[in-house]
Amino acid sequence: MKPLNDTFLKALRRQHCDYTPVWLMRQAGRYLQEYNATRSKAGSFMKLAQSPDLACEVTLQPVERFNLDAAILFSDILTVPDAMGLGLSFAAGEGPKFAKPVRHEEDVQALHMPDIDKSLRYVTDAVRTIRKALADRVPLIGFSGSPFTLACYMVEGGSSKDYRTIKTMMYTRPDLLHRILDVNADSVTAYLNAQIEAGAQAVQIFDTWGGTLSEPAFKEFSLAYMQKIIKGLHKTYDNEPVPVIVFTKGGGQWLEALADSGADAVGLDWTSSLSKARKLVQDRVALQGNLDPMVLFGSEEKIRGEVRRVIDDYGIVGSGGHVFNLGHGINQFTPPESVAVLVDEVHRYSAQFHN
Amino acid sequence: MKPLNDTFLKALRRQHCDYTPVWLMRQAGRYLQEYNATRSKAGSFMKLAQSPDLACEVTLQPVERFNLDAAILFSDILTVPDAMGLGLSFAAGEGPKFAKPVRHEEDVQALHMPDIDKSLRYVTDAVRTIRKALADRVPLIGFSGSPFTLACYMVEGGSSKDYRTIKTMMYTRPDLLHRILDVNADSVTAYLNAQIEAGAQAVQIFDTWGGTLSEPAFKEFSLAYMQKIIKGLHKTYDNEPVPVIVFTKGGGQWLEALADSGADAVGLDWTSSLSKARKLVQDRVALQGNLDPMVLFGSEEKIRGEVRRVIDDYGIVGSGGHVFNLGHGINQFTPPESVAVLVDEVHRYSAQFHN
Repeated sequence: MKPLNDTFLKALRRQHCDYTPVWLMRQAGRYLQEYNATRSKAGSFMKLAQSPDLACEVTLQPVERFNLDAAILFSDILTVPDAMGLGLSFAAGEGPKFAKPVRHEEDVQALHMPDIDKSLRYVTDAVRTIRKALADRVPLIGFSGSPFTLACYMVEGGSSKDYRTIKTMMYTRPDLLHRILDVNADSVTAYLNAQIEAGAQAVQIFDTWGGTLSEPAFKEFSLAYMQKIIKGLHKTYDNEPVPVIVFTKGGGQWLEALADSGADAVGLDWTSSLSKARKLVQDRVALQGNLDPMVLFGSEEKIRGEVRRVIDDYGIVGSGGHVFNLGHGINQFTPPESVAVLVDEVHRYSAQFHN
Repeated sequence: MKPLNDTFLKALRRQHCDYTPVWLMRQAGRYLQEYNATRSKAGSFMKLAQSPDLACEVTLQPVERFNLDAAILFSDILTVPDAMGLGLSFAAGEGPKFAKPVRHEEDVQALHMPDIDKSLRYVTDAVRTIRKALADRVPLIGFSGSPFTLACYMVEGGSSKDYRTIKTMMYTRPDLLHRILDVNADSVTAYLNAQIEAGAQAVQIFDTWGGTLSEPAFKEFSLAYMQKIIKGLHKTYDNEPVPVIVFTKGGGQWLEALADSGADAVGLDWTSSLSKARKLVQDRVALQGNLDPMVLFGSEEKIRGEVRRVIDDYGIVGSGGHVFNLGHGINQFTPPESVAVLVDEVHRYSAQFHN
């Protein structure tokens, strides 16, 4: 079914839109009171992510509060390695931890693709529940972490400042890392296709840590596996095209390579210039981004001004091609009123460029 | 006095060199046993930095152990705000803390340039002591944090993950941040000139956090103040030119602007391609970098291979212009043997390109 508001999908296909569509990475999150209430009800972050009804509830909250042009599945990027049996947990204020990190040859050999239908059923159930609840108001985005980003957590065992463990593997036993990335790429392909079959109308690959690599290492250990995934994804489903967005945080120097990945759109963090990016990618992909999330701590006047600057930087968009977003996930301390201002200004200001 | 080995200075001036010179950011540091011994003797990091004799001792340690082509003053980037009376301390394993962060209008108004001759005398004394001890074997590099990088610590009160406090100031009271940056720029100019007068033969501005900004914010809040400093620096001293290196970590998208800053050389982190960078800056500045520090955790073969890759990426250097370095400070867990391999390969492999 085509959503009633399909501006987001049109922009990704670089078709004519009446205004620039907007959604925000991590739009269902801790900056919203109602999210915190649902999370308390769930008991923990993982229980929240694993309950299709509660995941649906928080997915819809920002869509109901703000005039957003897309919903994104509420889930965690680490569901796939968790389903591989690595034992994901979240200690309060500490970020994700894996009980069984993948560091030695035997860990790597033991690694296998999870049974998506069984162990990630809660995700596809959530997608189905959310689609029903959305009732085609706006499109639903599915997502996954990139193979390299998942591998960072799997090898490090959690967050890292310098990625010393995974980079030591990369520079001493690249064969082991390639095997992990192969398993991850196959798993993510199946996982995203399952989300699409359950009703996701676009998918985004979050390559949060690809930007910590050198250019040749990025191409070999991150980009190549995202390309492999994109090749394996359903290009259309239910007679509708399913666009793919890739987002490498810190990937501003590799935009041309990302534009050639087979993705329909490339996400940009706030350090990149949209006008330079557009010249580089020659309009062969749509661009998504790229306001500094910290702008939302500014005055209303400043927020409106920075929104206009980003839209002006992209330039005339008669043919679509720009999806407004932050350059990274929204900060947990963001005042929700700032989000309302942002969405209003994106819609109001951009309309004049869409004739 | 010209150093006996002036390859580093020649490369910065883009003059003919017999090989590519090399030094490493944070080369005097915790990865060296002898550094840890001197630090224990000093009692604390700040006491080590504040003792000209001990600072001299640790500055020379890597030069004596490895065949490096430059020494860099051992000091901390936060000496200037400490001299402003903000109360710098280092809690074990926690990074720097300021007792009096600069957050409110009255803090900003009270801020003033320190008396360099008095409160930073220990730094210029260290420079003089080191020059004497080096006896012109290799050149000595002086350094400072950039105005924006210093401001990050001054406003946040220490390290930060998201720079929320300083960015809130930037997006609500840019006038306050500009006043801090003005004071910082004047202070850093006087501080670097004092280092040059004491004997520093080149200086580097470390813009560690400029890369967290959007492009227009980088130009307004970081680059403009580095340009102001460069304009105010001694261009020659003691009848010798004094080259300036600017290094914005994460600044790979702004290389052309950095090359126009007035600096003689631009440092690159490991995410940038030296060949692309060289094309962009059209050989109007020298380039410094850019091996991923984590390569030093690889096998000897891998280290040698990655060193060759970086040198090949820069390309033929008959006219100098490349200073080999890491793309960031050396990691504290680096095996010192890896550094010996790196230096050997840089000198050995690069010699063939310098005829």
